[in-house]
Amino acid sequence: MRWKEAFIYTLRQDPAEAETVSHKLMMRASMIQKLSSGIYIYLPLGYKVIKKIENIIREELDKAGCTELLMPTVIPADLWKESGRWGYYGKELLRFKDRKGNDFCLGPTHEEVITDVARKSMRSYRDYPQNLYQIQSKFRDEIRPRFGLMRGREFIMKDGYSFHTSEGCLDKTYYKMFDVYVKIFERLGLKFRAVEADSGAIGGSVTHEFHVLAQSGEDKIISCPKCPYAANSEKAQSKYCSDFAENQTDKKPYPVETFFKKSVEDVAKHLSVDKTQIIKMLVYVLDGPQGRALTRTKKYKFEMLVCVLIRGDLECNEIKVRNYFGANTLDVADESKLLAAGFEVGYMGPINFKKGIKIVADHSIKTISDGVVGANIQHVHAINVSPKRDLGHLEYADFAFADAGDACPLCGAAMEAFRGIEVGQVFKLGDKYSKSMGMFYADENGENKIPLMGCYGIGVGRTLAAAIEQNCDEDGIILPKEIAPFEHSVILLDPDDEKTATVAEKIYESLKSRGIDVLLDDRHERPGVKFKDHDLIGIPKQTIVGKRSVDLGLIENKDRLSGVKESLDIKQLFEILDID
Amino acid sequence: MRWKEAFIYTLRQDPAEAETVSHKLMMRASMIQKLSSGIYIYLPLGYKVIKKIENIIREELDKAGCTELLMPTVIPADLWKESGRWGYYGKELLRFKDRKGNDFCLGPTHEEVITDVARKSMRSYRDYPQNLYQIQSKFRDEIRPRFGLMRGREFIMKDGYSFHTSEGCLDKTYYKMFDVYVKIFERLGLKFRAVEADSGAIGGSVTHEFHVLAQSGEDKIISCPKCPYAANSEKAQSKYCSDFAENQTDKKPYPVETFFKKSVEDVAKHLSVDKTQIIKMLVYVLDGPQGRALTRTKKYKFEMLVCVLIRGDLECNEIKVRNYFGANTLDVADESKLLAAGFEVGYMGPINFKKGIKIVADHSIKTISDGVVGANIQHVHAINVSPKRDLGHLEYADFAFADAGDACPLCGAAMEAFRGIEVGQVFKLGDKYSKSMGMFYADENGENKIPLMGCYGIGVGRTLAAAIEQNCDEDGIILPKEIAPFEHSVILLDPDDEKTATVAEKIYESLKSRGIDVLLDDRHERPGVKFKDHDLIGIPKQTIVGKRSVDLGLIENKDRLSGVKESLDIKQLFEILDID
Repeated sequence: MRWKEAFIYTLRQDPAEAETVSHKLMMRASMIQKLSSGIYIYLPLGYKVIKKIENIIREELDKAGCTELLMPTVIPADLWKESGRWGYYGKELLRFKDRKGNDFCLGPTHEEVITDVARKSMRSYRDYPQNLYQIQSKFRDEIRPRFGLMRGREFIMKDGYSFHTSEGCLDKTYYKMFDVYVKIFERLGLKFRAVEADSGAIGGSVTHEFHVLAQSGEDKIISCPKCPYAANSEKAQSKYCSDFAENQTDKKPYPVETFFKKSVEDVAKHLSVDKTQIIKMLVYVLDGPQGRALTRTKKYKFEMLVCVLIRGDLECNEIKVRNYFGANTLDVADESKLLAAGFEVGYMGPINFKKGIKIVADHSIKTISDGVVGANIQHVHAINVSPKRDLGHLEYADFAFADAGDACPLCGAAMEAFRGIEVGQVFKLGDKYSKSMGMFYADENGENKIPLMGCYGIGVGRTLAAAIEQNCDEDGIILPKEIAPFEHSVILLDPDDEKTATVAEKIYESLKSRGIDVLLDDRHERPGVKFKDHDLIGIPKQTIVGKRSVDLGLIENKDRLSGVKESLDIKQLFEILDID
Repeated sequence: MRWKEAFIYTLRQDPAEAETVSHKLMMRASMIQKLSSGIYIYLPLGYKVIKKIENIIREELDKAGCTELLMPTVIPADLWKESGRWGYYGKELLRFKDRKGNDFCLGPTHEEVITDVARKSMRSYRDYPQNLYQIQSKFRDEIRPRFGLMRGREFIMKDGYSFHTSEGCLDKTYYKMFDVYVKIFERLGLKFRAVEADSGAIGGSVTHEFHVLAQSGEDKIISCPKCPYAANSEKAQSKYCSDFAENQTDKKPYPVETFFKKSVEDVAKHLSVDKTQIIKMLVYVLDGPQGRALTRTKKYKFEMLVCVLIRGDLECNEIKVRNYFGANTLDVADESKLLAAGFEVGYMGPINFKKGIKIVADHSIKTISDGVVGANIQHVHAINVSPKRDLGHLEYADFAFADAGDACPLCGAAMEAFRGIEVGQVFKLGDKYSKSMGMFYADENGENKIPLMGCYGIGVGRTLAAAIEQNCDEDGIILPKEIAPFEHSVILLDPDDEKTATVAEKIYESLKSRGIDVLLDDRHERPGVKFKDHDLIGIPKQTIVGKRSVDLGLIENKDRLSGVKESLDIKQLFEILDID
């Protein structure tokens, strides 16, 4: 392709609105253009990469026996009401009415539609298993769209869904898809980790995320260098799980004044104790589980307060708390709720308060023998507190974050931490959708059974953004050659010199005829501008054809990643390329 | 691909809701599944064909130097307000608000977005010409979605847009795109016609439609067998254009009673005259041109009434009337408007009414020497009317439909009529969007100029539906092999017989390794069911492998189109296919 056809209009300056490296570079390289908040146009250069990513995904899925279809963007509300998500999904679901007043939404995911497809066809056990996918633009009305394609409102996604008659079959497909994803991200040329993760609001119980490693990643990944264990830090088991209760202190609990000292830092300083001695109490409001599989037996129909105790130096992992109680949502209790429950805000602790509010404790509490707690009295804390002795029977669980250096729960080796960008996820949905939407098949005995489902997503645009976050330098993008917008470019420096132009054209045509995705830059621009542009958009191999070299019988090859240049004899090159 | 992977669930019966052949067959072959009125899921078999069509389109466009990009589905209202279409486009434009209350629409076409893309980049004459396209799901909230993919609400479309600095350049690209479209529809293996057409509400002046020929087509096409002239009957010049005024009658105009005789038929019968003697008058309401290029100089700011005279046996071509007056919309005047204008409903004619209402006449009126008109008096018509003598100076134009047998306006040969389904259209948009949206480029002298645009669409799903309308028989679909869902199928009749199954598998694998898109039917189903299914979904070549033949060392090949079967020696076949 020639430069003009490629529709590349690079920017010298970072656009003011772009916050992350990938967002800046994609705007500067004219890969994307903003149309509205979180809504981007994929310009030809960006869409070229998107199509390369899609093709790799498609090839690997087809090879694995998955079958492509295309579901609509506009989905009738009825299906979402069947699954219960119409009421449950928040404002991210863009809802509207058609001209006849019927309710519709723009599909953010397609569990309902695929279940509708499958329940109308797959009526016999012989039709199972089945594995269907699509690649499509989806819409999520994010409250704060940001970072370009990283968190957009309209975004391209590959979403796949499998159907099974047994847990064993679902398992098999789940781990097969896991392997396919590994293959896909390997072929994309990216450094990534597959990690255990939290299943979130989409439902299901078992799930793995695929993260592209990048310093700028929003997620923290904990992974073992010695064994395959890896997990999102929100899911990974913390090292405190192996803590045991120590001997209690001999000293008796004793109230101390802590005028206006409310934070862990202030209290620790005021009492001259280490933060690890402070027993921090957090109060959360949980709502009851609606429409999602319960991992615990208790059902909370209405919102309830829970108290979590954790060591003063640690942060509470709210996702673990939410999962522990099998709740849908978790919020920090606001002051009005705390006051109503009889807490002394700022001096809260697990003593002196209304019975009936559940207290759970992180394992880290066990190590405290001589701790400090809020006394639930204004300006008062209690010291010399031993949880074992003074706080009654506590329910312990893991509410802390894992971190680098923690022992691997599988093999005990010290784990490593990475930053990652989530680009893919595999889920076991179980019967969440098939059950609520009344999907059945007849088994070998003609009895109606509910099938099980898995679901498998890859954010295509996000993968591109993450790939750039991982592969760039101060000059621009350095995508792996598998997904670079072009594999090779021929930079013609003196287009008006006939001899130079002929050499460049011949090399260009020869590479093209060999099936190489090559770009010819035949613009009338200064060499510096051209070099900068090709480095910015990230062409892995660049052949520079200038009059001065050509007159000496030479051209220059440049490797974008290493920056290494080498001169080549034109005659020899033409012989190799079979050019007359 | 094996049958199960292909996700084919055929129906024996025509679905009740399907009205047209293609709709029935696509539902029966499990190519599509209805999700909501006018919203369909492309099931794997249908999407496979769609991707084949898309690939042919993409290949030909890329070869012609067009560049692909992808614009969003969700478009902010602001851009549509700039072009003026936000106010002008009717309820087919699906409008909604996002969570922040901002106005958006689902894109039915993308002129505004592409103009926004181009105006931000193409600022120098050196950036021109440019030709961009996308393939994408679009949405039009049709009042009466019908015929499956033929008139859906969500539909896949290829839309392309070109930008130019001169009329000559636009012309060149326009006719180049015309040729590319011819190439595309040839490669799709379809019988089609490119015809002159009306430019409709999208604007612009010159346009051609591409019609797939099919008896069930909604459009009538008039085409010359001797020269390249072809036009949509709504646009084609009628034969009456060459009519000339005849001598007038000697008789004087005379009123006659026509009690309750209002229709042309009734009046003709009552007065014992031929329908060709009756001068029919139609009254229309036109609105003024808004936001579209005017082909005539007069501007009508408000609605106005016009009267059209046409010979009693002919239908009035309302599109020609609308174009003649350069109006946006045309409606038949309702009774209240007619009464207000002083017409005698049922007995209307070009005499005895308020001055100031414009009358135009179709050329067919010229041939009438002794005509009948409504007298604008209840129960009265006038006979012996000679338009030339009695109706004052009439403005004549072409308001009739062309038909088979009419003389070609280019060469005079008798034209032929076809039914067609519009699947593609090329437009010269001119400066309609670039002007209203303030798009400029700097010309050679640094002066700001407004560029010209062309636009080029192909309905991808509609092309599939039209292809089936054209290529089917009582047994099912017979798509050309270029776009058949599979090129070849191997029908294994006795999957439990090892020898037979091995022969089938070997042939299947061999064909697959040769890059042939082949389907293996290894189901446990009766032979009759399998034969019917393969004919229904339209596999052009079918290899039937059954135990009885295999035991004789034979297999059978069937051609779907001709129905011809031939037996082949397995040994010889294996030698040819290089199978061990």
